[in-house]
Amino acid sequence: MNISKDTVFGVIGLGVLGGSYVRALSSAGYTVKGIDINAETLAIAEENGWISEGSADPRLIADCDIVISCLYPHAFIQWIRTYGHVLKKGCLLTDVTGVKRMIIEQVNALLDEDIEFIACHPMAGREFRGIRYSDPERFRNANFIIVPAEKNTGDAISAMEQLAKILGFGTVTRLSAEKHDEMIGFLSQLTHVIAVCLMNSRDTEYLAEYSGDSFRDLTRIAVINEDLWPELFLMNKDYLLSEIDAFTAEMQSFRALLETEDEEGMKEKLRGSTRRRRMFEK
Amino acid sequence: MNISKDTVFGVIGLGVLGGSYVRALSSAGYTVKGIDINAETLAIAEENGWISEGSADPRLIADCDIVISCLYPHAFIQWIRTYGHVLKKGCLLTDVTGVKRMIIEQVNALLDEDIEFIACHPMAGREFRGIRYSDPERFRNANFIIVPAEKNTGDAISAMEQLAKILGFGTVTRLSAEKHDEMIGFLSQLTHVIAVCLMNSRDTEYLAEYSGDSFRDLTRIAVINEDLWPELFLMNKDYLLSEIDAFTAEMQSFRALLETEDEEGMKEKLRGSTRRRRMFEK
Repeated sequence: MNISKDTVFGVIGLGVLGGSYVRALSSAGYTVKGIDINAETLAIAEENGWISEGSADPRLIADCDIVISCLYPHAFIQWIRTYGHVLKKGCLLTDVTGVKRMIIEQVNALLDEDIEFIACHPMAGREFRGIRYSDPERFRNANFIIVPAEKNTGDAISAMEQLAKILGFGTVTRLSAEKHDEMIGFLSQLTHVIAVCLMNSRDTEYLAEYSGDSFRDLTRIAVINEDLWPELFLMNKDYLLSEIDAFTAEMQSFRALLETEDEEGMKEKLRGSTRRRRMFEK
Repeated sequence: MNISKDTVFGVIGLGVLGGSYVRALSSAGYTVKGIDINAETLAIAEENGWISEGSADPRLIADCDIVISCLYPHAFIQWIRTYGHVLKKGCLLTDVTGVKRMIIEQVNALLDEDIEFIACHPMAGREFRGIRYSDPERFRNANFIIVPAEKNTGDAISAMEQLAKILGFGTVTRLSAEKHDEMIGFLSQLTHVIAVCLMNSRDTEYLAEYSGDSFRDLTRIAVINEDLWPELFLMNKDYLLSEIDAFTAEMQSFRALLETEDEEGMKEKLRGSTRRRRMFEK
C-alpha cells in the first residue's frame, strides 16, 4: 500500500499520543477518523479540526485504509478481540506499543488473515495524559522504529516509513521484535525502574533543598504513569529481569571495590563509564 | 572576623573551582593571592587579573586573612601537614571538599590552635578540570553549605556567610558534618555510582542511536573525574555502603514484584515515586 491523498486513516484512542497522530495527519491534509470512548476528547478533536469525524462506535473506521491503535497494550488486544471484525479487508493495522513480541503474537492470532498488522514504536512518550497534552512537535527529533514480523510485506514496511515522515519523526529505523524488546528493556525500562527505586529507597522529603542536578537528572522519570508501565514491564518480564540482574551485579561489583578500599579498581570503573558515555555524545 | 575591603584572600589550587573563586573575589574588588604548582595556570590567572599575585611557593599566602583550599581532599591534608606552619596566626582557613567528617578531624589534628578551620561545601562541581573551565556564573543558583564543627566561632560562621554572598551563591545553609556526609552519600555519591554502574552494566555501543532522554538523563554524570571521586567515596565509605545497600534492597523488592507478576504492587511503587518526586518540583 502506498499512502496517497485518498488514504483514509482511523486512529483508535485519542490520548496524548493518539491526539498527536491525528493532529499531524490532519494538518498534512489527510482524512482522519477518530475513535475514543470519551465524549469530551472527541469534542476537542472535532472542534479543532484534528479529525474529520469522531465516534465511540468502532464501526466508524470500517472504511479506513490504515488503522492506528494508540491504546495501552492490553486495551489494544482487547479491542481487536472485540471489534477486530469491523476492520476493512485489506486494510493495514499498526500501533504505538512500547514492547513488541507479545503484541505481535497476540494481535496476529486474533486478526483475520486478510488484514496485515505491522508493529511500530514511536519513541516519543511523555508522562502527561490526554489529548490536551498532544503535540506533534514532540516527534521532531524522535526515533520511529518499525518492527517487522515474518509475515509483513515490503509494501507495509514502506507505508510505515511514509507514515513516519508524514508524522514528522527525525529518524526511522527497523528492528526485530526480539532486538527491540531487549533494547527497550535496557534503555527505557531498566532506567525507569532505577529512577523509581532511587526515589523510593529512603525518606527524601527533607533533602529536596539540597538536591542538585545529578539527583534531579536521575529521578526526573520517577514521575511515571502507573497504569501503563507495569503492563509494559510484565510484557517484557524476561528481558527486564535479566537487565535488573546485570545492573545489580555491576552495583555489587562496585560495592566490593569500595568495601575493600580498592581505589585503583574504582578508578578503572570510572574510566570505563566515562569512555562509554562519551560515545553517546557523538 | 568580618570580611572588609582590607581582607586579603589566599586561594590554594587554581583548578576549575579555585579559578572560579579567585575570579569572583577579584571582580568583587578583593586582594587575592593564588598558589598553584602549575606555572601556566598561574600565568593565566595573573594575565587575566584574577589574582594580584601568584606563586608555587606557599609562603606567598603567609599574610592572608582568609585562606581557601581548593585542593582535592588528600592533597589538602598533605598540604596542611607540609605547609600549615606558613599560615598567619589568627587567620581563617576554609575549603571546598565534598565530604566533611574526616577532613574536619584530620585538618584540626594538624593545625595550630591559633588558626580556625571552618569547613564549607560549595555545591557547584563540574566534570571539566582546570582554570580554563572556571566560571563564577556557575555559583549563581547553587547551594553553599557551611559545616560548623564544635570549635567554630560565630564570627567564622558569619564570615563564611559573607564569603558565600560575595561568591554569588544562590542559597546558604548549615549542616553538621554527620548530616552533610549522610546527605551527600545519598544525593550525590549514590547517584554517581548508579550512573557509572548503569553505563558499565552492558555493552552499550550499538544502542547509542536508540537512547532517548531517560537513558541520557541517567548517565550524564557517568562522565566522571576518576581521580577525585574514589577519594571522596572512600572518605564516606560507611554512609555510601549503606546507601548502596538500601537502594539495592529497593531494587530487589521491585524485582520480586515483577517476578511474581504483582501488577498492583508495582503500581503502588510507581505511585510512591511519583508522589515523592513531585515534592522536588516545588
